[in-house]
Amino acid sequence: MATPFPPPSSRLPVTVLGATGVVGQRFVRRLAAHPWFEIRHLAASDRSAGKRYAEACDWRLGGEPYAGLGDRVLAPCSPQAAAAGIVFSALDALPARELEPLFAAAGAWVFSNASAFRMEPDVPLVIPEVNAAHLALVPRQRRERRFSGAIVCNPNCTATVLAMALGPLHAAFGVEAVLMTSMQAVSGAGYPGVSALDILGNVIPYIHGEEEKVEEETRKLLGALAGETVTPATTDVSALCHRVPVVDGHTEAVSVRLAGNPSLVLVREVLASFRALPQELGLPSAPLAPIILHDRPERPQPRLDLAESAEPAAGQAHGCAHGMTVHIGRVRECPVLGVKFALLGHNAERGAAGASVLNAELAVATGWWAAD
Amino acid sequence: MATPFPPPSSRLPVTVLGATGVVGQRFVRRLAAHPWFEIRHLAASDRSAGKRYAEACDWRLGGEPYAGLGDRVLAPCSPQAAAAGIVFSALDALPARELEPLFAAAGAWVFSNASAFRMEPDVPLVIPEVNAAHLALVPRQRRERRFSGAIVCNPNCTATVLAMALGPLHAAFGVEAVLMTSMQAVSGAGYPGVSALDILGNVIPYIHGEEEKVEEETRKLLGALAGETVTPATTDVSALCHRVPVVDGHTEAVSVRLAGNPSLVLVREVLASFRALPQELGLPSAPLAPIILHDRPERPQPRLDLAESAEPAAGQAHGCAHGMTVHIGRVRECPVLGVKFALLGHNAERGAAGASVLNAELAVATGWWAAD
Amino acid sequence: MATPFPPPSSRLPVTVLGATGVVGQRFVRRLAAHPWFEIRHLAASDRSAGKRYAEACDWRLGGEPYAGLGDRVLAPCSPQAAAAGIVFSALDALPARELEPLFAAAGAWVFSNASAFRMEPDVPLVIPEVNAAHLALVPRQRRERRFSGAIVCNPNCTATVLAMALGPLHAAFGVEAVLMTSMQAVSGAGYPGVSALDILGNVIPYIHGEEEKVEEETRKLLGALAGETVTPATTDVSALCHRVPVVDGHTEAVSVRLAGNPSLVLVREVLASFRALPQELGLPSAPLAPIILHDRPERPQPRLDLAESAEPAAGQAHGCAHGMTVHIGRVRECPVLGVKFALLGHNAERGAAGASVLNAELAVATGWWAAD
Amino acid sequence: MATPFPPPSSRLPVTVLGATGVVGQRFVRRLAAHPWFEIRHLAASDRSAGKRYAEACDWRLGGEPYAGLGDRVLAPCSPQAAAAGIVFSALDALPARELEPLFAAAGAWVFSNASAFRMEPDVPLVIPEVNAAHLALVPRQRRERRFSGAIVCNPNCTATVLAMALGPLHAAFGVEAVLMTSMQAVSGAGYPGVSALDILGNVIPYIHGEEEKVEEETRKLLGALAGETVTPATTDVSALCHRVPVVDGHTEAVSVRLAGNPSLVLVREVLASFRALPQELGLPSAPLAPIILHDRPERPQPRLDLAESAEPAAGQAHGCAHGMTVHIGRVRECPVLGVKFALLGHNAERGAAGASVLNAELAVATGWWAAD
Repeated sequence: MATPFPPPSSRLPVTVLGATGVVGQRFVRRLAAHPWFEIRHLAASDRSAGKRYAEACDWRLGGEPYAGLGDRVLAPCSPQAAAAGIVFSALDALPARELEPLFAAAGAWVFSNASAFRMEPDVPLVIPEVNAAHLALVPRQRRERRFSGAIVCNPNCTATVLAMALGPLHAAFGVEAVLMTSMQAVSGAGYPGVSALDILGNVIPYIHGEEEKVEEETRKLLGALAGETVTPATTDVSALCHRVPVVDGHTEAVSVRLAGNPSLVLVREVLASFRALPQELGLPSAPLAPIILHDRPERPQPRLDLAESAEPAAGQAHGCAHGMTVHIGRVRECPVLGVKFALLGHNAERGAAGASVLNAELAVATGWWAAD
Repeated sequence: MATPFPPPSSRLPVTVLGATGVVGQRFVRRLAAHPWFEIRHLAASDRSAGKRYAEACDWRLGGEPYAGLGDRVLAPCSPQAAAAGIVFSALDALPARELEPLFAAAGAWVFSNASAFRMEPDVPLVIPEVNAAHLALVPRQRRERRFSGAIVCNPNCTATVLAMALGPLHAAFGVEAVLMTSMQAVSGAGYPGVSALDILGNVIPYIHGEEEKVEEETRKLLGALAGETVTPATTDVSALCHRVPVVDGHTEAVSVRLAGNPSLVLVREVLASFRALPQELGLPSAPLAPIILHDRPERPQPRLDLAESAEPAAGQAHGCAHGMTVHIGRVRECPVLGVKFALLGHNAERGAAGASVLNAELAVATGWWAAD
Repeated sequence: MATPFPPPSSRLPVTVLGATGVVGQRFVRRLAAHPWFEIRHLAASDRSAGKRYAEACDWRLGGEPYAGLGDRVLAPCSPQAAAAGIVFSALDALPARELEPLFAAAGAWVFSNASAFRMEPDVPLVIPEVNAAHLALVPRQRRERRFSGAIVCNPNCTATVLAMALGPLHAAFGVEAVLMTSMQAVSGAGYPGVSALDILGNVIPYIHGEEEKVEEETRKLLGALAGETVTPATTDVSALCHRVPVVDGHTEAVSVRLAGNPSLVLVREVLASFRALPQELGLPSAPLAPIILHDRPERPQPRLDLAESAEPAAGQAHGCAHGMTVHIGRVRECPVLGVKFALLGHNAERGAAGASVLNAELAVATGWWAAD
Repeated sequence: MATPFPPPSSRLPVTVLGATGVVGQRFVRRLAAHPWFEIRHLAASDRSAGKRYAEACDWRLGGEPYAGLGDRVLAPCSPQAAAAGIVFSALDALPARELEPLFAAAGAWVFSNASAFRMEPDVPLVIPEVNAAHLALVPRQRRERRFSGAIVCNPNCTATVLAMALGPLHAAFGVEAVLMTSMQAVSGAGYPGVSALDILGNVIPYIHGEEEKVEEETRKLLGALAGETVTPATTDVSALCHRVPVVDGHTEAVSVRLAGNPSLVLVREVLASFRALPQELGLPSAPLAPIILHDRPERPQPRLDLAESAEPAAGQAHGCAHGMTVHIGRVRECPVLGVKFALLGHNAERGAAGASVLNAELAVATGWWAAD
């Protein structure tokens, strides 16, 4: 078992790419309050570079506007202008594909929320509680791409929440099949994102590209590492994705077929007792318990269990870990696949900004990343 | 093949039990405009009996308030006060269990939306497009219960929408397993029903008793009739039910395992070409096509496809058939069960008031019911 | 009193500019079913011109998609390509300012929903029930601008609903002051318009430019025509505009100071009995009564009273007049200004597409417009 | 100027009446974390008395369920069973009218959120920032009603938010007239309160009794105290109240006529610099500044500015003062009354539970209340 990681003696300088968007804002808010990291550069598109952050950014979160950094002048997204050992990328897929390698080539470790490189065989797609070991792809990536830095991805928000529940089940029993129906919040689509005219009082049974991402990323996340190769799990994964009129929080209705047909008691026990490397290392963004198991049949619910206001429940920590816990309720028998349950996670924290930050903490604490 | 049924020479008198509630109001609106039926009695609880309909009822539908019957005086729910050959029941389960047998004993055919008798082995649970033959349970029911009338039930709203899609698939291929995740409208819970404080911007992953109803009723609906017995289908049915902030219309995400693994082309063809006895008989509340298959990936959607305003699309008829069509979209491969699709139906019309009325039309047109 | 206008002997060809947007779609749906007009050209931006309507347009209304015109090829917005005696403009303000004069110069009568020319002193800003006489500005406009056609504007949606209520009050008593707080539907902002992330479970107390439009347009609408000049009313108008999570229908809370302090009984009588030139002429898009006065204190409500499904209430007509009635409730004393009431109108029909069409009907029926 | 009040040397025991309802829960959450008060008794209806709090209460707030008091056994609402020097009442009006005097007669100071006694001439209706002096009615009340304790009321939630803005304006200029249109959250109606079927995608232009309460309570709040009599202000007050689909937070659109027609600059200065007795005394539930004046035209907004999560903005304090700040934006000229602005406050904190608690803090700190 790992021992808690001693915090760095001084805060490590970091850069945020795409700092003005809604995911970028969540990065900024998290990092502004982070015990290990210190924002050195806020970088944005050429259109915004050179402006003050408060000018270029339409701040859309609660709390102190611009996280107190409204006066910072935005840098362009280039390694020359915004160099730092650790870079967080809130870029869209297209610019990410072009720009992230430039940073990695220049020596930065890019912790990316973008989809651009997630499925590349030499790029770790990591959730620290689920497959921390996949960071071992980094040496191969550096070698093959001639990077002095690296790119480390976190998965799609919907896949992240799902894999948080599947991780311990796969480790304990083996997940043979999973069928997941999502009811996704509008914040998952960015800003302006979903039109109110489309979603008010409505359900949209389609999110472009989402089901494919969930299906393939989940298999990679649950995959086994051998040497410098991750072999995707053979789990059959089926995703049915929907947009619903909820602000934050993806609800997922999950059915699984587990090897050996374990009892519900055992399944609940595995979920409730789940702890992993981030908890052992005491990473700042890691909740005390990654999963909270609810008793009441009508829970979890996005508005009650993911409210920014929600006080830390049992198993949650204060501060950086906010929004990082995944909630499970109604673990019960599924007449078709064996076990079904309700799952809920914060798409924009555990599923986006918080995911990248936790990955960076993991890389630092495990020594994969080291200041030269 | 049946031939269109000639309308009765004069309109048949009917009674509505529970006329003041929201389902009762939909019965009244449908029947006030019905070509075969004529409302003779509006019956309500003792608290409301004796009052004018407009006084006792908080009309909650669009269109002419009280369907023009605001001056009718409400009768109590007793066969003495409100006798008619055909009775529609919008009662809750508890009063239904007590009162419906009294009407059936007194000679009325009770077409009931209540859950009270749905799973009784001698009570037909009918969707005319799916299992019209189950009406053959009536003679056994009359014999065993000494009824001179009968009780005929329609299923739970969520089960109805599901069975409308499964019916043709089961007939064509055999449905071995189905996993259905619902996103249900608030109107399914009656009035006042769901608290705004619970559902605004939220998803509730639980509806009391709903999953059990869907699972058992679906098997009965797909069951085979032999003599005077319905043997439930062996289909494995798993339901995961959710409430969402939608006014009308249950969205269902469905995955099925079909015997023989038919191609998607074949599945689509079976769904799109589905016609059944109500269409052959030209029943007034039967849509021209029971299922509309959508091409656009983001459809069907409750607010666009079930709006009261929606003009009849291809396959829909005007008037009585409004809200009776079920919508299917995104028929695609399911990595776990074989085929998955998006399903949508109107919970309060196809799933409640319209369901009972269509059952009555079926009983009349097939001669099971006959005025003495 | 005018007598009903005999419908034209053959349907008049018309053009829709900006046919692919959400207001354009409402124009198309209205005109496709119109007894006097026939769509000759659907015109759109250069980006869309040449494509089929179904290709270029993301149809967002209930009813038959593309109003059955999905195969029409879109013309560019130029008088050469899309000439017709009558043109409906659903253009945005900027292109409207450039393009509408080209059509008017080429001989077309442009009935415009755009804000571009509304406040020009030689352009009639017309609601047929309120200030039909203002069409008399047309000769001056033609002379000054050397148009062989003309531009006729309808007001901003919020101003339209307000003026529908103020019109009869101003005629009967004189409106000295009006204070109006709006709660506006998202469809008023077009598509994609308002972001779901902004408006779900929220109220936004600001709509750019809206209050100014309401204040100045209302004074012009209530203004007196003398010769070829409209002198704005001296009424003090104050608007406080809000966006709320409603799909269709602007609710307005109105307080007025009326000259002579008429009784509430008299005010109600004036509103309830209001009929005007469109009713006398029997214009197809004119409701039988322009205003419906509600008795129940909790009405009117947008979802119940403006539903596309709402059957014609007393005073409404079928078909073209749908959405053209304005609803008033709770006429009561205002301790500050004298009289206050709740007001509701359909922003996208009475406040946009239906407004322009009714203006065209008025111009035809009054002989201002005549085919050469 | 008052000096900060030294906290009591030990926490004062308090009782909550009606602890299981949604306002009661907010009392419990506030008081469980309060530096001066300590919950001695949780009291509820006879139906709940004797049960554990967690059993009898359907906890509906974020944060730790039951505020950690789930095991407390509920007392009945009688002074014998639940005596304490300080009592908070979350009772409905009817039981409040019966029960509160029993407590006051038995020596308790009842800080009541109920409407029952608000307009009694001998009962202080108090907002500490607005009319703290009105506590001077207490001796008269004790004398006339033979109470050894007292009843102190806080106003209706909508009136409270309004008076918070009017207070400093009335003090600085005199408010001659105010016209206020509210857009009220569903939490203002309690639980289950508003039906989702009524409010989803809708606006209801009526809340029973609300306009009358706002109009009369506002005049009493702004009234002058002379001896033991409060003379209501002569301000003309007109309220137009609406329910909108918002969870928490009442938005109010306000127009005022101020004596002397002060400039907008002056009005803004008065609002922004407003501090009052609770701030001077440093009461735990008092925000650093009672009013936050916003610069951005689209603010304030309930979902952004009242989120439980919202970090303390300038002028807010942490902890007990959460939800106690009132937000004002868009101070601008009103063509009818002179000045208009957007106003927002938390109906369930500043307008209910927090209001009573702040009143109790005021009574303690000013010495009106003293432990015997």
